[in-house]
Amino acid sequence: MREIVVFSGSGHRPFAAKVCESLGVELSSVEITRFSNDCLQAQLQANCRQRDVYIVQPLAPPTQEHLMELLLMLDAARGASAAQITAVIPYYAYARSDKKDASRLSIGGRLVADMLVTAGAQRVLTMELHAPQVHGFFSIPVDHLTALGILAEHFLGQDLSNAVVVSPDFGNAKTATQFSRLLGIPVAAGSKKRLADDRVVIDAIVGDVEGKRAIILDDEIATGGSILELLDRLAEQGCASASVACTHGLFVGKAVERLRGHPMITEVVTTDTVPAPTGWPELEVRSVADLFAAAIERIHHGESISDLFDGVDPALGPPQPRLFD
Amino acid sequence: MREIVVFSGSGHRPFAAKVCESLGVELSSVEITRFSNDCLQAQLQANCRQRDVYIVQPLAPPTQEHLMELLLMLDAARGASAAQITAVIPYYAYARSDKKDASRLSIGGRLVADMLVTAGAQRVLTMELHAPQVHGFFSIPVDHLTALGILAEHFLGQDLSNAVVVSPDFGNAKTATQFSRLLGIPVAAGSKKRLADDRVVIDAIVGDVEGKRAIILDDEIATGGSILELLDRLAEQGCASASVACTHGLFVGKAVERLRGHPMITEVVTTDTVPAPTGWPELEVRSVADLFAAAIERIHHGESISDLFDGVDPALGPPQPRLFD
Amino acid sequence: MREIVVFSGSGHRPFAAKVCESLGVELSSVEITRFSNDCLQAQLQANCRQRDVYIVQPLAPPTQEHLMELLLMLDAARGASAAQITAVIPYYAYARSDKKDASRLSIGGRLVADMLVTAGAQRVLTMELHAPQVHGFFSIPVDHLTALGILAEHFLGQDLSNAVVVSPDFGNAKTATQFSRLLGIPVAAGSKKRLADDRVVIDAIVGDVEGKRAIILDDEIATGGSILELLDRLAEQGCASASVACTHGLFVGKAVERLRGHPMITEVVTTDTVPAPTGWPELEVRSVADLFAAAIERIHHGESISDLFDGVDPALGPPQPRLFD
Amino acid sequence: MREIVVFSGSGHRPFAAKVCESLGVELSSVEITRFSNDCLQAQLQANCRQRDVYIVQPLAPPTQEHLMELLLMLDAARGASAAQITAVIPYYAYARSDKKDASRLSIGGRLVADMLVTAGAQRVLTMELHAPQVHGFFSIPVDHLTALGILAEHFLGQDLSNAVVVSPDFGNAKTATQFSRLLGIPVAAGSKKRLADDRVVIDAIVGDVEGKRAIILDDEIATGGSILELLDRLAEQGCASASVACTHGLFVGKAVERLRGHPMITEVVTTDTVPAPTGWPELEVRSVADLFAAAIERIHHGESISDLFDGVDPALGPPQPRLFD
Amino acid sequence: MREIVVFSGSGHRPFAAKVCESLGVELSSVEITRFSNDCLQAQLQANCRQRDVYIVQPLAPPTQEHLMELLLMLDAARGASAAQITAVIPYYAYARSDKKDASRLSIGGRLVADMLVTAGAQRVLTMELHAPQVHGFFSIPVDHLTALGILAEHFLGQDLSNAVVVSPDFGNAKTATQFSRLLGIPVAAGSKKRLADDRVVIDAIVGDVEGKRAIILDDEIATGGSILELLDRLAEQGCASASVACTHGLFVGKAVERLRGHPMITEVVTTDTVPAPTGWPELEVRSVADLFAAAIERIHHGESISDLFDGVDPALGPPQPRLFD
Amino acid sequence: MREIVVFSGSGHRPFAAKVCESLGVELSSVEITRFSNDCLQAQLQANCRQRDVYIVQPLAPPTQEHLMELLLMLDAARGASAAQITAVIPYYAYARSDKKDASRLSIGGRLVADMLVTAGAQRVLTMELHAPQVHGFFSIPVDHLTALGILAEHFLGQDLSNAVVVSPDFGNAKTATQFSRLLGIPVAAGSKKRLADDRVVIDAIVGDVEGKRAIILDDEIATGGSILELLDRLAEQGCASASVACTHGLFVGKAVERLRGHPMITEVVTTDTVPAPTGWPELEVRSVADLFAAAIERIHHGESISDLFDGVDPALGPPQPRLFD
Repeated sequence: MREIVVFSGSGHRPFAAKVCESLGVELSSVEITRFSNDCLQAQLQANCRQRDVYIVQPLAPPTQEHLMELLLMLDAARGASAAQITAVIPYYAYARSDKKDASRLSIGGRLVADMLVTAGAQRVLTMELHAPQVHGFFSIPVDHLTALGILAEHFLGQDLSNAVVVSPDFGNAKTATQFSRLLGIPVAAGSKKRLADDRVVIDAIVGDVEGKRAIILDDEIATGGSILELLDRLAEQGCASASVACTHGLFVGKAVERLRGHPMITEVVTTDTVPAPTGWPELEVRSVADLFAAAIERIHHGESISDLFDGVDPALGPPQPRLFD
Repeated sequence: MREIVVFSGSGHRPFAAKVCESLGVELSSVEITRFSNDCLQAQLQANCRQRDVYIVQPLAPPTQEHLMELLLMLDAARGASAAQITAVIPYYAYARSDKKDASRLSIGGRLVADMLVTAGAQRVLTMELHAPQVHGFFSIPVDHLTALGILAEHFLGQDLSNAVVVSPDFGNAKTATQFSRLLGIPVAAGSKKRLADDRVVIDAIVGDVEGKRAIILDDEIATGGSILELLDRLAEQGCASASVACTHGLFVGKAVERLRGHPMITEVVTTDTVPAPTGWPELEVRSVADLFAAAIERIHHGESISDLFDGVDPALGPPQPRLFD
Repeated sequence: MREIVVFSGSGHRPFAAKVCESLGVELSSVEITRFSNDCLQAQLQANCRQRDVYIVQPLAPPTQEHLMELLLMLDAARGASAAQITAVIPYYAYARSDKKDASRLSIGGRLVADMLVTAGAQRVLTMELHAPQVHGFFSIPVDHLTALGILAEHFLGQDLSNAVVVSPDFGNAKTATQFSRLLGIPVAAGSKKRLADDRVVIDAIVGDVEGKRAIILDDEIATGGSILELLDRLAEQGCASASVACTHGLFVGKAVERLRGHPMITEVVTTDTVPAPTGWPELEVRSVADLFAAAIERIHHGESISDLFDGVDPALGPPQPRLFD
Repeated sequence: MREIVVFSGSGHRPFAAKVCESLGVELSSVEITRFSNDCLQAQLQANCRQRDVYIVQPLAPPTQEHLMELLLMLDAARGASAAQITAVIPYYAYARSDKKDASRLSIGGRLVADMLVTAGAQRVLTMELHAPQVHGFFSIPVDHLTALGILAEHFLGQDLSNAVVVSPDFGNAKTATQFSRLLGIPVAAGSKKRLADDRVVIDAIVGDVEGKRAIILDDEIATGGSILELLDRLAEQGCASASVACTHGLFVGKAVERLRGHPMITEVVTTDTVPAPTGWPELEVRSVADLFAAAIERIHHGESISDLFDGVDPALGPPQPRLFD
Repeated sequence: MREIVVFSGSGHRPFAAKVCESLGVELSSVEITRFSNDCLQAQLQANCRQRDVYIVQPLAPPTQEHLMELLLMLDAARGASAAQITAVIPYYAYARSDKKDASRLSIGGRLVADMLVTAGAQRVLTMELHAPQVHGFFSIPVDHLTALGILAEHFLGQDLSNAVVVSPDFGNAKTATQFSRLLGIPVAAGSKKRLADDRVVIDAIVGDVEGKRAIILDDEIATGGSILELLDRLAEQGCASASVACTHGLFVGKAVERLRGHPMITEVVTTDTVPAPTGWPELEVRSVADLFAAAIERIHHGESISDLFDGVDPALGPPQPRLFD
Repeated sequence: MREIVVFSGSGHRPFAAKVCESLGVELSSVEITRFSNDCLQAQLQANCRQRDVYIVQPLAPPTQEHLMELLLMLDAARGASAAQITAVIPYYAYARSDKKDASRLSIGGRLVADMLVTAGAQRVLTMELHAPQVHGFFSIPVDHLTALGILAEHFLGQDLSNAVVVSPDFGNAKTATQFSRLLGIPVAAGSKKRLADDRVVIDAIVGDVEGKRAIILDDEIATGGSILELLDRLAEQGCASASVACTHGLFVGKAVERLRGHPMITEVVTTDTVPAPTGWPELEVRSVADLFAAAIERIHHGESISDLFDGVDPALGPPQPRLFD
């Protein structure tokens, strides 16, 4: 069996280190150099020849810098005769750009998928893509993990008798339903609406939330605007307190300020697919590093990854045709 | 300016003929031969050299036959030195296979997109893809039309004072909202739920439908099962009559039988992206052939296609970033 | 050494089962689903990760359905991280479409070869291609088996003192000559001619057949028309009885009716590259499943396949340059 | 309409000049440099930008030198922003390498086709490929001309009352039959057989040649060995004199010596797809330059090429399906 | 003739505007959006259909941001059915990463070239690549301009009787020689040497500079370190004053501070391939916008670009073979 | 671990045999056939299935023949299901064609790199490319060896107290400097200049050579013209004797005659990357076969190749960024 070599860009080195610890291999070092003309260069510091190379890099901000680092590391691994190159992208930010809802618009989700292949990626290991269709943007195998089980574990020890899972919008409702089943509680969802052309508001909550404790679930929180909106609606409907859970906790802009002190929020839970924001010690960060390590091990040993998600993975739901008509 | 040549497989020749009539060009003939071993062969009967070739073929059942015809015609056009080859696929059936919700599942929507390119397609002209992300499955330009305007026209002459647009599920809700704005009436949506593992039911209607006339909108109707479910729920909520509108009216299996005589249904409106079912004279079929012809003309003359859809096209809604967070 | 996983579409599952039995592995199951809009979807039911995957599917009628199944299974295997994917196509029907003898004609043999690669095939294992040049249509390695040895075995136990191998046309004459050498008897061939534009007739037999027993050899029999023609000519030349042998016994249309009761035919021998026709119990079907299994085993263990065909394989004839000038 | 620019390597510059004369354009010059380490370099001496570039080069001996020149010129044209690049290869020598009749054999016909595309060719214009399947080796459009009409013209002025077309082998028999129809006379063919492993002999003539004048037709004559063999057999069958016609008259090795003084041969007719041999003034060379010029003109003006071959082109025979079964 | 449409990212919009002014076309606008997760998105605001699209973007710092903008604009132009897409990259920063002088190093110059093609670029128009071999990294046509003529013009009006062109190192010496010939004066060069492993010093000047006025020429100045080194050496050799000229004037880090007030420097001349640094009013910036506009016009009209550089372009020097041995 | 199979074309079979001897494997045979129409064909005579195939062929003259042999062997290995195919090209002649210093010039170095990939090469093992940027022309991994250590060994036993390394031009100066450090002696370089347009002369020597013994180092010597020039300049500067060392000793044209009897030359040292010239028994040929064998072994066992060159490899110099600004 070939050896595993793991590299990390500057996107989230502590996460890569945790994955390595879990795998029982050392994190190999990379020298990323910035030329004085601002160009980047990557030099992998460990032998890649005939090895299975895993390059860990979430596309967290500064996104373009981290993307370019990833591409250069892939290029270096290919040039160094790696046997198999996997891009481990815990957070694939460009999944947001998944359609052309205006003329002459770039579709970044597809473009970046193609660029990764151009640079040498032969497989992608990622988590919670914004839309499941983004999987189809890749011409190489994608192993798509979910953090639902790990987020659920957090709540399963609590008293959930009065709780309800709430999705900020319908787009995420299918995942929220799955989450609610894991917790054994009901689900509700906000209905988003555009107010004029420049603001999105949530104007209704579908499902009963009155007098309940909400567990808000979203795939990704950036500035936290949608969550605030949702909390207002929940309050209006007689829901007094909320937990917030998300896979990708970016918390950029005013997010920390907005969410940390919010009177309705009892706790915020997220994972470590991206670095945690500074100045927020109470933020509950559940690590998905062991999950990524387990996936890498299964990839390496040729074992099924879907087994990792018994009871969680959409793959275990009823087969597709029943969804149709 | 180069000449336009239009060919049609056996998928829906009357539609191709209408498009040609609208364009003012003749539909060129194709000889599709079936060998005794069941292989197909296409021979284009008009000169393609240096011409802009458009090959019209919806992927209506028998889908595999129509797909292979299309691929062979594309191959023949390429071999015949066409200057530019556009696959005109009014109904891209494989858009339904757009994600991997189970392990080791084919993603037909992406595979067929790649096969079209392999066979020689350089552009695709299509209508109402099941999910907007499917656009990103193509590595070639896609011009994506909508029939919403044409379907809306049908209703705009009617008294809509008491009407409401109803989407069978949330997946289609965004389109339904757009449609409702074109008609100037409210919108509601069914909420789908899985009953055990083998049946999908609609268990609730979000939005007020009581005492109203429903205008049900779906992108595609195959066996009509979802529509029946929805009608039951509407009836329960005090909605007594419904119009049904869809872009792709396949009406396969028991669909005609189910819908034609349904007591709640006052009319069914669809387009001619696929051939109309037999034995249903009252079915209202609005042609989108002029729209395809207009798009071909604009492609040919290098004019913008989005102008065709003023007030309809998602492209004219607020730009993407406002959708986020 | 990696594990072998074998899947089969609905093209000829009993054949795939035999191959597996011979290999001593289980045939893994595949769920092929047909959506109500007639699209197909494949889900492989066994782990493919790091395994050598073999997908067995002859392109027998309904050819387009079987081809699409094969493409979807290849796509699923690639997405499931198979280490190596071999399309096992005992009968590659599209080899018939191998040239452009008219303007603007599709070349299906090349197009399907490219589509298989697009879908993820990395090697093809096939038998008796209609023309040897079709090998060059593939950009991936092709292992090309022959059934001549197995068909010859059938006859070697018989009294061949008065027998002659007869090829229906000159195109197949080289193979017939090889067959005659295996049997140690002479060879003859029909000369095809076009009668007007719409019928092909065999107008002469080259070689001495008078008073002999003919062993007619063809690569593929579909409707059996050519064989009937040939029998008429043989009868005219004083040849009273004939055995018929072919690799790919499709026997479609009126073939069974025509051949089964023909007074001159003493027996018809074929192989199981395609399912046998119904209603023809006397048809002699010699299985090539062991041969395919042996080839898969040699591919898997990195052994030469040409050794399988000592005395049979064209590869063992004199080297190419002597064929020239 | 874009301008035409024509370049020629050193393969057969007089032919290229004739094509240009017929087209009414000047032959643009190319500087082919040989470095002292034997590497070649091509510099096109005329502006290619936005022009339709045609590069004329038959793959006559020294074949590798001419092939490399062609590839370098294609590369230079692409780098120079040509709008469309056509490789004009009157003689595609590597068509001989069209199958794998031994293990681990290169298939040069396919490899060179792929190399031409790699170097920048977007279309190929060629004549009389050794096997029609070679057409399918190319992933770009191929315009395939025939010299049959021009060779037939040569004979049509003669008294053909006692003449018969003779093909040296069955592989070429289909073309010979077409030729015989153009001349309105019968056809015969030699039957090749391997004598031991190292020599090919013609052991029989199929068809009546006794007392007739043979018009031997072959696609290509290299050393002339097969022709000599055929003449011996013809003599044995009472055929006293022969004309010899071929498209590609290489006449290498002892060919001139063998054929020029042969007592049975009354004349040898060929075309100028390759340079004529020296020391053979009586050789009848019919130019196909006008045919290539006409094809280039039609390509350029987007007119059909098949019209050029009324009564000659295989394309005008009955459609493919009638050839099957 | 097709229309020209020009877009510009945020890399250097004033330059793009100048190019447009010179071309007599309007600069079309682009909406570059930054999502809250730091992903970028480009929307081209003018019709691209059947048009020749030019996208202007130098890879000046912040390089990764500008590169990603460029890639997204290319993707959008391709999706919008542009007829021909040219990436106009006045400064191709990644040309610095042109070789692998250490193990497992990325080669950014090649990678970015491939990424541009992946994103949809069909031609590149650039200026003064760091090494001429970088041209060969692109698989698409590259039009490579030089600013030497424009920089020379600046000096030709001055008294050059005592001047000498000085190149900071030998790598740039060939270009410096060309420049010196344009000015009709001698040339000298610094010899770089590594001092220990972490500093490069210039330890000698080859050529006579004593008592002369130096005109230092470099392709690109970033921090200005090499120039300072060179000035020290020049001073030691009795050269009291210097002009500095470069094509790409980045002037990052302490460059402005170092060079602006340097006692030996009389003037610094550069071009506008990248935005000028702030706080340096005396910097002489010669625009190359007219040159780019002229090149675009010639590309558009299919005229030769090399004519633009009579007396300047390396292309006009003696042909390559004389350089060898 | 997979087996190694090594094949050799006719480029330099004794070298391949030495490599095999060093590896302890047998050199497998290849039958290269030349058809009478001058086309080549390769048949590999050993099983390649699942094996690591190495094909050894320097591009020494006749370059085109050797290149085509290599391409055909690669094609045959791919078709024969080799697991991994490495083109071992000790001398990559086309590296000389690395830039476009004139309009409409082919860039053979890139074209041949692409052709090797088209033919099936998956890795290249080569030595001393003419310019380090040529590495970036390949889209597959390149292992790039250097002979500097082996050439240095030759001199290290001698008295070097008065010796100086001399490079014929500045292009090679970096390598010469490395060489001088290995020998612990100073370095000098010739300065090339064009005399009119058709001759290159060396007009100066940079560095002190008076009264010293020169050790001239070049990457490749073809006709030896540059060396003669350099010797004249050295003589003028008071340098009386010289050793000559080069990696690729082609010695074509008058090279042997010129160098063998030259009064100043005491010895000429080269390697066996190309066959040695005939008639020059005193030529010192140091074999690099062991080095290639060691590299193949390391590739095969997944060990680092750069370790082979401790103290020699540019890879061990200071990292790239320090070279910049």
